[in-house]
Order: sequence, then structure tokens, then C-alpha cells
Amino acid sequence: MDVGVIGLGRMGRGMVQSLVRGGHRVRVWNRTASAADGLDGVTVVHSAADAFTGDAAITMLADDAALRSVIVEGGLLDSGTRPGLHLSMSTISVALAQELTAIHERAGVPYIAAPVFGRPDVAQNGALNIVVAGDPSVIAKAQPLLDALGTKTWPFGTQPYRANAVKLAGNFMLIAAIEAMGEAAAFAEGHGVASADLLDLLTNTLFASPVYKGYGASIAAGRYEPPGFGLRLGLKDIGLALAASGQAGVPMPFASVLRDTLIDAVSHGDGDKDLAALALVSARRSGR
Amino acid sequence: MDVGVIGLGRMGRGMVQSLVRGGHRVRVWNRTASAADGLDGVTVVHSAADAFTGDAAITMLADDAALRSVIVEGGLLDSGTRPGLHLSMSTISVALAQELTAIHERAGVPYIAAPVFGRPDVAQNGALNIVVAGDPSVIAKAQPLLDALGTKTWPFGTQPYRANAVKLAGNFMLIAAIEAMGEAAAFAEGHGVASADLLDLLTNTLFASPVYKGYGASIAAGRYEPPGFGLRLGLKDIGLALAASGQAGVPMPFASVLRDTLIDAVSHGDGDKDLAALALVSARRSGR
Amino acid sequence: MDVGVIGLGRMGRGMVQSLVRGGHRVRVWNRTASAADGLDGVTVVHSAADAFTGDAAITMLADDAALRSVIVEGGLLDSGTRPGLHLSMSTISVALAQELTAIHERAGVPYIAAPVFGRPDVAQNGALNIVVAGDPSVIAKAQPLLDALGTKTWPFGTQPYRANAVKLAGNFMLIAAIEAMGEAAAFAEGHGVASADLLDLLTNTLFASPVYKGYGASIAAGRYEPPGFGLRLGLKDIGLALAASGQAGVPMPFASVLRDTLIDAVSHGDGDKDLAALALVSARRSGR
Amino acid sequence: MDVGVIGLGRMGRGMVQSLVRGGHRVRVWNRTASAADGLDGVTVVHSAADAFTGDAAITMLADDAALRSVIVEGGLLDSGTRPGLHLSMSTISVALAQELTAIHERAGVPYIAAPVFGRPDVAQNGALNIVVAGDPSVIAKAQPLLDALGTKTWPFGTQPYRANAVKLAGNFMLIAAIEAMGEAAAFAEGHGVASADLLDLLTNTLFASPVYKGYGASIAAGRYEPPGFGLRLGLKDIGLALAASGQAGVPMPFASVLRDTLIDAVSHGDGDKDLAALALVSARRSGR
Repeated sequence: MDVGVIGLGRMGRGMVQSLVRGGHRVRVWNRTASAADGLDGVTVVHSAADAFTGDAAITMLADDAALRSVIVEGGLLDSGTRPGLHLSMSTISVALAQELTAIHERAGVPYIAAPVFGRPDVAQNGALNIVVAGDPSVIAKAQPLLDALGTKTWPFGTQPYRANAVKLAGNFMLIAAIEAMGEAAAFAEGHGVASADLLDLLTNTLFASPVYKGYGASIAAGRYEPPGFGLRLGLKDIGLALAASGQAGVPMPFASVLRDTLIDAVSHGDGDKDLAALALVSARRSGR
Repeated sequence: MDVGVIGLGRMGRGMVQSLVRGGHRVRVWNRTASAADGLDGVTVVHSAADAFTGDAAITMLADDAALRSVIVEGGLLDSGTRPGLHLSMSTISVALAQELTAIHERAGVPYIAAPVFGRPDVAQNGALNIVVAGDPSVIAKAQPLLDALGTKTWPFGTQPYRANAVKLAGNFMLIAAIEAMGEAAAFAEGHGVASADLLDLLTNTLFASPVYKGYGASIAAGRYEPPGFGLRLGLKDIGLALAASGQAGVPMPFASVLRDTLIDAVSHGDGDKDLAALALVSARRSGR
Repeated sequence: MDVGVIGLGRMGRGMVQSLVRGGHRVRVWNRTASAADGLDGVTVVHSAADAFTGDAAITMLADDAALRSVIVEGGLLDSGTRPGLHLSMSTISVALAQELTAIHERAGVPYIAAPVFGRPDVAQNGALNIVVAGDPSVIAKAQPLLDALGTKTWPFGTQPYRANAVKLAGNFMLIAAIEAMGEAAAFAEGHGVASADLLDLLTNTLFASPVYKGYGASIAAGRYEPPGFGLRLGLKDIGLALAASGQAGVPMPFASVLRDTLIDAVSHGDGDKDLAALALVSARRSGR
Repeated sequence: MDVGVIGLGRMGRGMVQSLVRGGHRVRVWNRTASAADGLDGVTVVHSAADAFTGDAAITMLADDAALRSVIVEGGLLDSGTRPGLHLSMSTISVALAQELTAIHERAGVPYIAAPVFGRPDVAQNGALNIVVAGDPSVIAKAQPLLDALGTKTWPFGTQPYRANAVKLAGNFMLIAAIEAMGEAAAFAEGHGVASADLLDLLTNTLFASPVYKGYGASIAAGRYEPPGFGLRLGLKDIGLALAASGQAGVPMPFASVLRDTLIDAVSHGDGDKDLAALALVSARRSGR
């Protein structure tokens, strides 16, 4: 397919490589043009509008503000040449997803939400798990792109915002798992048990899953840089989860604890470390 | 080996079957004698003292009070015939573990702590994960028993109480995982997403581990009975974790939330349901 | 002074009465005109612009959205006749306060923030406590209005947003006091102690202050309607406090608990009750 | 009356002085005899048994362990000469209060619970607020003592443990008020507002009560020593409140937050400071 990709952060770059490998013709655009350096087999275009055209456009931007700035304030939906469909893959708020659904409908541009689970290296390997929601016929058209990007597409119905809600729920559970490990590690150390030994046991038995193994190893090694999933980004995502929980009237005490813990971490200068650095907050609380 | 087992709850019964299958000669005792009904190949004895003798004695009792009642108040350590070693496998407090270590030392009875991870069916299959701590030479003597009971023994040094701390840390993480799923499920439902679909996605990808798969399936199906791990027992264990965290000076905000949520569940009559019923608290908080 | 008042909710109406009694010439405007019914001695004007003129304009609106809609989106700062100063008395976010400060400065309209503590009847009696921040010379010009509205003006420096931060801190402490009473009441009832007796003791001794006496009496009597300070409004204010705490990098675990408790209350249909109805959440959590 | 007082901590010493001034004949005993130094008009006795006799005995000890050690393990209830009544004034657990009620009944010694609100100087001035529960005829006999010690006696029925529950509820609310001020202070400082100014406003208006004024002034001044109410003692009391809340099936999220915050403070070496030092935890969490 002929696809434009807007947003070349670490995730976006990885995804572009998978699309090229999958045989798609890829145009790319990023606010900072140098982000495209070293990407082979793509056409670098010089405006967002030039990317937002063709068979499909993919957006993979950092947050609500960035996506709103490009799509809404940038007026892309009012431009003459528009894409066959817009595959919105950023992790954004439920509220913005609802707003974008409405304005795309008014503009006559098919819109589906397809946020992903996986780190940049997973994106580069085309092995993401993709959560998708929207009109099934539009999803069907986008399927070649989804196949290039991920190992599996998980459908969540026809309302795009539900895919975003699922993504936020997943990130909440991921950060909760890290906090639980951080508290357990501080608890163990407080009783003279090496946290590495504790996490070795638990992440190879009851919790033998990618999230626990990956972040558990980081906590065990005290290795918080470079960030795979940055702590400040985690705070943003918990903020989105809390906003969406308020919208739905669902109290989430764990998410509330996570917000306070993440703020604590950022206020102590760890915002650019990996989410695993949440364990430093647990340790600090215990006076270590 | 010639081993006496004190405590024939669901876990104890499963363990006895594995010991028999492993070729050990097993005497059993339980406060309520009928608990031994249907156990083949064992000798039922009529006092705790008759079980607390031989090559080794294993205790697998419900809580601190039960273990204290049998061992300390029952005066077993002062009796004439005492076992070659005491393998203490119950989930008990760090404080009681420390106390038992001291009084066994005074009484000259080798004492090792060996709490386990695994449900009753896992005990019956001899597939437990066993956390062990104590004098290495004593652990070596107990190894044939540990081999019959579990697939793997995880050593945590020479201080018995550390094995108990590890067990409490593990149960804390397990209950935290269930709470996180419960909150995420309520969040999803609040946005029109079936919690079964959400949990199917997450427990087959990021969280593809035994704990998440097992409890996730229960939450997805709304199936809370019969209990694998009872909610009231979970409240007891979080109480032990909090007591030990206070002793070590380690704040644990997630554990604090869990205590309140578990009390909420018990106060609504769900104490005898499975821990997965924590999800009912999340749902109730959101007005469902 | 010649003053325009925008916003005639229950607080705004009370304030207008105090201004009239203080000898000021008062123009009033409200989105729904009927809100001015029964207000004596005022001139009802038919556009926000007609109120936003004269010696001073006072805004007393429900939330950020309402204030933003009137002032920013309504384009009042670009209109020809503008007031001598804008006295911004609504409870709004720190972020909006900062934004308004900047755009008033660009527009050349003196802007001071003056949020208040006190219920509608206190507003009507001119007995509010007024928190004020902004240019001292502008505050001096507004003093006759402040004197008509309150018993005391509390200055908090020259940056308007700081008055809003103080207001949010005060409302946070108020709602925290109610939650503490609610939990204590449920605790007492759980031990067979009438919560009315407990609160009678505590609000007449250690906690003999207006907030505790007022809300304590409501909880003791189980009297949650009509609302003095509505629960849904309280949720809005805790949301503003949390947003501002995130902006300043300050974790606030009590505020996080309050948010979850307030959402729980609203999700159970108590959003239009008084904040004292937080006590119903504590009771429900305990299975009553 | 002829009264024996067991326990001469700072509270006990103050109470003894009020009893002497009230014309009572006072025998005193303390584990460490030097605690009686400088107390005029009292008879120092050399065993707890010599104090636990006469018209009445008052116990005012530090915690459950101290009271249990003296009364239960000390065997005082089995001794020959026993007091006309036992006025139990320590802050103890609901569970111990229930146990003591039962064993006094078996021993035939009238037992009433009478914990107090007030700092040592208030005790010395005979101005305590006394919470009392037990057999009304026994309370009537003790009234001259209660009148010497306090300005007011607050009756809470015939079950002694209920007075202890009320005391724990009061201390919970007190510590919650301090935490709320600490969080609000950190929030204010985060927005450039001096916490002293914030607390001056709030403790002279909405929160003009003894608790807020006293602890608010300490926080505003950053004055945490000497302790009026020590932080480690506060942690003990929240522990008792949580234990009692569990017993009654009442979730108390604020109390859970307080426990973690108090542990954090103690783990950072502030256990011997005043409870107002909770504000240091809020400040630390925000990176200050």
C-alpha cells in the first residue's frame, strides 16, 4: 500500500522499517526532519499534508497535544488530498479519540484506532500486538499494514475510542506490576533478602511473563537507563487512565497510588529513566 | 524417610499424597481427625506428639495461631521423642518465624522454613515451588522430602524467617496482580469493553504468566467459587505482609490499598470466595 | 463603585446582595437570564460585554469551562468598553489563572484573583474570607468591593494564580476533613458507637471549628440534602487540586484517595448531595 | 479518694499532680522508680501490687505490652488486696480492652475504660476530655477522680472497649488533620506560596480549632521538637486503629495512607519528633 507515516519517534521509526520490509511504499514526515535520518527505502516529505494522503495515513505521535496540533490545528482534514483511511496508533486520551472520531466522520475520512503494545525493538521486528477498533470494512482495508506491523491484531469493536481505553488499561496494569515489584523488592531488602533473588524466583514461576521478566531484571540489576518506556511517559499514561476513569465513573485506587509514586519519581529527577525506576521510590520511602 | 505431617487442610492433604508417592513413610495428624479420611498409605496418629517425631516433622497449618497452639502451647518441643528436623511449611508471620527459630534452637530441634507457592492440585502433583531457608546441612537432610513435594527448591540463606518474608512478598504480588486486573476490568466495562476481551488480550501477551492467566480467567468468567485461594486467607496474608513491612520500616502503599479492598470484600460477604472476587469490589465502587 | 457581575449561581447571587447593600451600583448578567429573578436593586444587562465594563467586573462562574467560554471564547477582552479591573472570584485551575493573567496583561485589563471561602449564606451576609493576589495598586482599587463582600481579605502576593492555589488547598483540606469524619464514623459504628456521639465529642473539643461542626452535624444526622457544597463540585475541585499538584510535582496521597471516594459517591447517584455524603461511601465500604 | 497510679510517663505525671491538687491521697508506681522524682504530695510505693489497691487504681501506660505486662503477666488480679475499681486510662487496643474486661469480671474487680484527649500540660491542669465507658455505678464511684483530671467526662455506654474505640477514632482524625496540612503545605510551597501564610489563613477561619491551630503553627514554623505527641506513638495508635478497623470490617483508606506516611517518617529518623513532622514526608515526596 501507499502509506504516509506522521511521527518518527522511537516507536514510529521501528514501525516504518517494518512497513518497508513488508513491501509498502512509505512516505514519512516528522516535525523535526532529522528524525528521518538513516531510514532506508522511504520518501521524506516536507509537510504533514503530504504524508496525510495516499491509501492510508498512520499517526504515531507522543501525546494528545502533538496529535491535536498536527491533525486538528494543522487543518489536515480540510485539505484537498486526503488519505483513504487514518490509522491512529498513538496512545491518546479516550476524550481525544472520541473527538477525532467525530471530526473525521464530518470530514468523510475513515478513522480507526490501533494503539499497540511493544517496545521500539518489537516495532522494528513487526511483532507488535495491535489493538484495533473501528468500522470493520475499514479495518479490512488496513489489514496489510497491520500485518506488516504486528504479529496479531486484537479487535475491540466498532468504536475507535475503545481501543484507546484498552491500551490505557494495559499500560495501567504494566505500571502496577512494576510498582508491585518495587514494593516487594524494598520489603525483601528490609528483611535482608536480596531483591534480585526474590525477583528471580517470582518472575520465573508465578509471574513468568514478558512484563515481569523484563522490568524485574531491570529492578534486580538497578539498571534504569537507557529507558525502554520512560517514566515521564508513564506518568502521562496514568494521567490519561485517571482522566478516562473519571469520565466512566470508575474509582481506581491503584492508579491513584501510581500517579503519586510517578510524580515522586519525576520530582526526584528520574523522569527520563525507565519505568523500572519506580523501585527507587519504594526504596527511598523506606529510608534507603 | 519416616515423616510426620501435622495439618491436613487442602494443601496438607495434597502434600501427603506426594510424599506417599515418593516412597516416604507418612504419619499424619490433624486437630479434626476426619480430615485424614480417604488418604491412602498413611498412618493416622492420635496426638500431635506422635506426629512430631521420626526423621522429620512437617507442619502445614492455617495461620500463626494454629501453629503456635500446636507447637508452643502444645509443648511439643519439651516432649521426649522429637523429630530429626522440623520442616515448617505454613505461611506464617516473620515474627513467629523468628520466635520459632529461637525456641527450636533452645530445644535442640533443627528448624527450617519452607513455605510453598502452588495451589492444592499442584501440591498433590508434587509440583510446588518451595522457598527454603535455614542451616544448609539440615536442608540437605530434608531434600528427599522437598524433592517429593516440589519441582524446585529455591534457597534463601540460613535465616529461616527470610523464607517466610519471601512467601509474603510473593503473595502480596499475587494479590496486587488480581487487584490490578479487577480495576482494569471495571475500567474497561466503564468504557463499554467486555472485561473478558481485555483480559484475554493481556493475559496472552504482556501478562502471559500462571497467576494472570488463572485469576484473569476467573474474573473474565465471573467465577469465584469454589475458592482456589480464599479471599479471607488473602486478607490474613496481607495482614502478615503489612506487619512485616512495619517491622522492617518499609511503606507499601499497594499493600495498604489491598487490605482495605479485601476488608471491603469480606464485609460484603465474599470472604469464602476466591481471591478473584476482588474484582467485585472494583465493580461495586463504580456503581455496578 | 460601578460594577458588573457575571455569574449568578448561588454564590454569585449572595455576593450581589452584599454589593448592593454596600452601596455599589451593580449590573448583572447570567447565561440563563432567569437566574437574576428576585434580585433587588440591580440592573440586568443582556450581554456579558455589558457587564464586563465600568469600574470593575466580577466573574463568579462554575468552572474553568464556563469562565473560559465567557471571557476567552466570548472575546470580551477584545471588546471596546472594558472594565477598570477584572476581579476573578471563581474557583478555577491554576493553569487557567496563569493563562488569564497573561491574556489580560496583553489586553491591558488589570486582573486580580480573589477566590473566596464561605457558603452562599455567608456570601449574602458579606462575611466571606477572601483570598486575593495581584498587583497591590489594583487590589487597593478593588478594596471597596472586597469590603462589601467579606469580613477579611487575605493577601497572597502579586501573582494571581497563587490565590487560586490557596483556594484549592483549602478545599482539599475541607474535603479531607469530611472524609476523615466519614471513616471515623464508620469505624465507630462498627464498634457499636453511635457516630453522632463520636462527632459530638470531637467537634466540640479538638475539632471545634466551623468545617468540622458544620459537616460533622450533617453526618451525625445523616442529612445530605439540600447541598451546601455539592459533592460533584467537590470532585471538580479535587480534580483541579490534583492537576495543580501534578504541575508542581507534589504527590498528595490524601487527595488521591478523595478523588476515588468522590467518584464512588457520584457513581452511586450522590453527586447532587452535600459533600457530607462522603460518609455514605465509608459506610458502604464496610458493608452497611 | 485513696488512689494508686501505675505509670508515670509525661501524661501520668501530669495527672498525678491534678489528683493531688484535687485532694486525693495518691500512691504512685512506675517500672523505673526515678520517674516519680519531683512529684510532691504522693507516696511512692515499691511494687505494682502496692499501687493496685485502695479505693481505685489508675493505669496510664505506654501501650498494650506495658499494660499487659503489669496487669496480666504481673498477676495483679490474683493478688490479695485489690482496688475498689480499676480506671484504665491508657490508649490501648480494642482487643486488649475486651480481654481486660473479661478477666476483671472473672476476678471480681470493677473495670472501666477512661482514655483521655489532651497533652501533658492539659493533664497537669486537670483539663482533659475524658471518654468513659463501663458500668454506670462504677463510673459514679470514680467521678471524683474524673472531676480532678478533666473538665468534662464524655460517657459512651457500658462496654469499656467502646471508649477505647472512640479514643482511637479521635487520634486517627487528629493525625489525618496533620497529614492534610502537610500535603496542603507542600502543595502551597510548590506554587510559591509560603506554607505559614496558607496555614495562618486556614487555621484562623475554616479550621479554627485546637488541633489545627497547634499542629498548624508547628508545621508553619518547622518546629518539630520537643514532641508534644511523638510520631512513633502516632504510628502505634494508627496501628491500633487499623487493627480495630479490621476487627470491625471497616476499610479506612486515610488510615492506610497515614500508616505508610508514618513508617516513612520513622524510617527517615523522625520517630522521636512531633507528629507535625509528618509534613516533612510530604515535602520529601515532592523532592524538596
